[in-house]
Amino acid sequence: MTSTATKIQAIAKELSAIASTSDRDRLNKLSLDYYHFSPILLEQLQDKRGDLAFFPTTEAEIVQIAKTCVKYQIPLTVRGAGTGNYGQCIPLEGGVILDVTQMNQIRSLQPGIAIVEPGVKMAAFDKQARKIDWELRMCPSTYRTATIGGFIGGGSVGMGSINYGQISDRGNLRRVRLVTTEAEPRILELKGDEVQKVLHAYGTTGIITELEMSLAPAYPWQEVIVVFDEFMQAAQFGQALGDSSGIVKKLVSIHAAPIPTYFTALQDYLPREKHCALLMVSEYDLAPFQDLVTEYGGKITYSKNAAEASKGTNLLEFTWNHTTLHARNVDPNLTYLQTFYFTLERVQQMYTQFGEEVMIHLEFLRAGGKAVPAGLQLIRYSTEERLNEIIRLHEQQGAFIANPHVYTIEDGGDRQIDPDKVAFKQEVDPYGLLNPGKMRGFSVAK
Amino acid sequence: MTSTATKIQAIAKELSAIASTSDRDRLNKLSLDYYHFSPILLEQLQDKRGDLAFFPTTEAEIVQIAKTCVKYQIPLTVRGAGTGNYGQCIPLEGGVILDVTQMNQIRSLQPGIAIVEPGVKMAAFDKQARKIDWELRMCPSTYRTATIGGFIGGGSVGMGSINYGQISDRGNLRRVRLVTTEAEPRILELKGDEVQKVLHAYGTTGIITELEMSLAPAYPWQEVIVVFDEFMQAAQFGQALGDSSGIVKKLVSIHAAPIPTYFTALQDYLPREKHCALLMVSEYDLAPFQDLVTEYGGKITYSKNAAEASKGTNLLEFTWNHTTLHARNVDPNLTYLQTFYFTLERVQQMYTQFGEEVMIHLEFLRAGGKAVPAGLQLIRYSTEERLNEIIRLHEQQGAFIANPHVYTIEDGGDRQIDPDKVAFKQEVDPYGLLNPGKMRGFSVAK
Repeated sequence: MTSTATKIQAIAKELSAIASTSDRDRLNKLSLDYYHFSPILLEQLQDKRGDLAFFPTTEAEIVQIAKTCVKYQIPLTVRGAGTGNYGQCIPLEGGVILDVTQMNQIRSLQPGIAIVEPGVKMAAFDKQARKIDWELRMCPSTYRTATIGGFIGGGSVGMGSINYGQISDRGNLRRVRLVTTEAEPRILELKGDEVQKVLHAYGTTGIITELEMSLAPAYPWQEVIVVFDEFMQAAQFGQALGDSSGIVKKLVSIHAAPIPTYFTALQDYLPREKHCALLMVSEYDLAPFQDLVTEYGGKITYSKNAAEASKGTNLLEFTWNHTTLHARNVDPNLTYLQTFYFTLERVQQMYTQFGEEVMIHLEFLRAGGKAVPAGLQLIRYSTEERLNEIIRLHEQQGAFIANPHVYTIEDGGDRQIDPDKVAFKQEVDPYGLLNPGKMRGFSVAK
Repeated sequence: MTSTATKIQAIAKELSAIASTSDRDRLNKLSLDYYHFSPILLEQLQDKRGDLAFFPTTEAEIVQIAKTCVKYQIPLTVRGAGTGNYGQCIPLEGGVILDVTQMNQIRSLQPGIAIVEPGVKMAAFDKQARKIDWELRMCPSTYRTATIGGFIGGGSVGMGSINYGQISDRGNLRRVRLVTTEAEPRILELKGDEVQKVLHAYGTTGIITELEMSLAPAYPWQEVIVVFDEFMQAAQFGQALGDSSGIVKKLVSIHAAPIPTYFTALQDYLPREKHCALLMVSEYDLAPFQDLVTEYGGKITYSKNAAEASKGTNLLEFTWNHTTLHARNVDPNLTYLQTFYFTLERVQQMYTQFGEEVMIHLEFLRAGGKAVPAGLQLIRYSTEERLNEIIRLHEQQGAFIANPHVYTIEDGGDRQIDPDKVAFKQEVDPYGLLNPGKMRGFSVAK
């Protein structure tokens, strides 16, 4: 029986025409994402390492890599920029890492629709798309570095979700092109509802080589901070802005005190003990927006138009899970949860119940067509037991937690195995080589 | 004491430099709207006539008309194209008609924002705006002939409301310029929330001379008919399309059988006894839209892209109150109601309860940020008593009826007097000359 090391050497030799690395330091970096936000994942994932990484530039090279990994039965884990938070692209069983960041061509850019390679960075894409007045429908706070393929494989929501919902909402992702990991890899195209089989599948169901994305009309986005005396004022303002059909917005991010104290670079705009809203609103709708702020008793402390906001500080990088990043820079003992509260009443209940052990951070997004408050609460971490108890207490009150302290697709979601995804994986990855250990419902027929 | 006829003659003489008519036939036409959809309003309004009509082309001319009407204490009723349905612009007490259709200049057209005179026709405006890829946020089915000023003064919702809500939603109307009817008419500008004082006020609170409107990004709108075996399938499909954040749409209009039989020009696409949806969907989102149709068991019988749809038949003119128009062309005994059902459960209940006496026609629109089914049900009219009973029966079940068989602002809405509008009218029209009889809460201090 051939050792893994021997197989890896053979793969490297057979694929020597493709850019690769077996340098330890580089492999260490290519075996990380931001799972360290979770003390639990940190312990589980910190020793996981890939053995060899490829940087293909064409689909043909990806086919070769797939074929060779199947030949040697070596795990193959695809990654983009590695900006995920749940170890989505961590190679649990080592093997080959396939870094798609060199697959970064925009193949087609038309009004409403773009075709891209998976390694295209989101901000770089938008820079091109805005030349024709369009932009991506939704992006994570890691917008500047994250790849589109990585977001499809490991993401779900972000800035823009207040308009277009989740990336899994029908219409946002139009088509995916995939390479299978079979003895003779096939190239498949999934269209329409079929794309669900690769969405948020952590790269376990084929290697994405091309994506067709729906775009949004680009607006000049004003970046605004509003502060409030009371947290529930801020939360109600967020809901009202989400529900204001006549005011176009892209980001509605609400932070209970003392979270604003963690935003070091924004301290000039965040008076002590105030609660804040970090917002992106169409420049055109700034006047009615100001009327809404007045109605809810808020005070605007920061307002930059799109041209100013494009230089230097951008508020997006204090929202979604960048909030957690900034908070942990100040206090590494903090971690977070992801929650659908569904109603503001439940937000208020949790705010009262937990006090500063659970600091409430809301991101408003559209779910089932309605603007709802989702939470990325900051947690003062004590023990895994207490964290799980906090989760249980939320669930007892009817909140839904998407647990970010687990690394399988199912445990981080609704804990249900998706038979469509499992069946599709049996078809495209019969040996279970793609990112093994991440899909709970899958097992290889031996 | 001077007779009205003498005063009218004096006004005509003093304002002889302004285009006008006192021709009976023309005055008859200028004293109508589409109130004949209501047998009750028809009886109340059919004998109402203006005595003299002006067609000003400038604000300066409007100031002169206002001043002269105040001087002679003669009623002054402003009208656009007269496409309303509740007698909004019918001169209950005769006097001067001010037709704004010659005030039809687009003063400024920029991305996101336009400044227009009140007589600009909506379709004509959009033709210009689409050259820079923008369009009006919402328009009634009388889009081709209706004026923007008339819609602000007498309208409320329409195609586009599934995205931007009601015209009264904060942000849709930005600024209004007005002439007062005082001894020395003033020119006022209302901005932001202040514009509520003229919205849907039937021209009782000042004469609009300029409007600043928020625009929507223009899409190429595919026009589609989908048919369904069961009415509730069609209704649920409408709700699902309204709630599909990833599918961009502009019109979601649902018709229970036998309403489709009234659409004479569309009979090739409307199989007998089927229920139908008349829709406008972004061409870019047609693929995911088709997946949604499949999910709800619908069948697409008609699909025209924006370029084809711009020639000949357009589906908008079978929706909103054009539905009633087509139905009455076949059966003049039909009339209608306007209803907020709020939920599909209530729609189903009313569908079962009334049978074909109340044929359900839904238009989905965004209210408080949520897609909701509004009704413009067709009613087989028997007596005023029965019509009022039908209204009561709806209200008993929790539906809200905006009664289209009354001509005052309040009775057609929530029946509450708006103290802000009344106070503003005292300020700008102290003699109560503007469209007298339409604002219930107002009385002149004698």
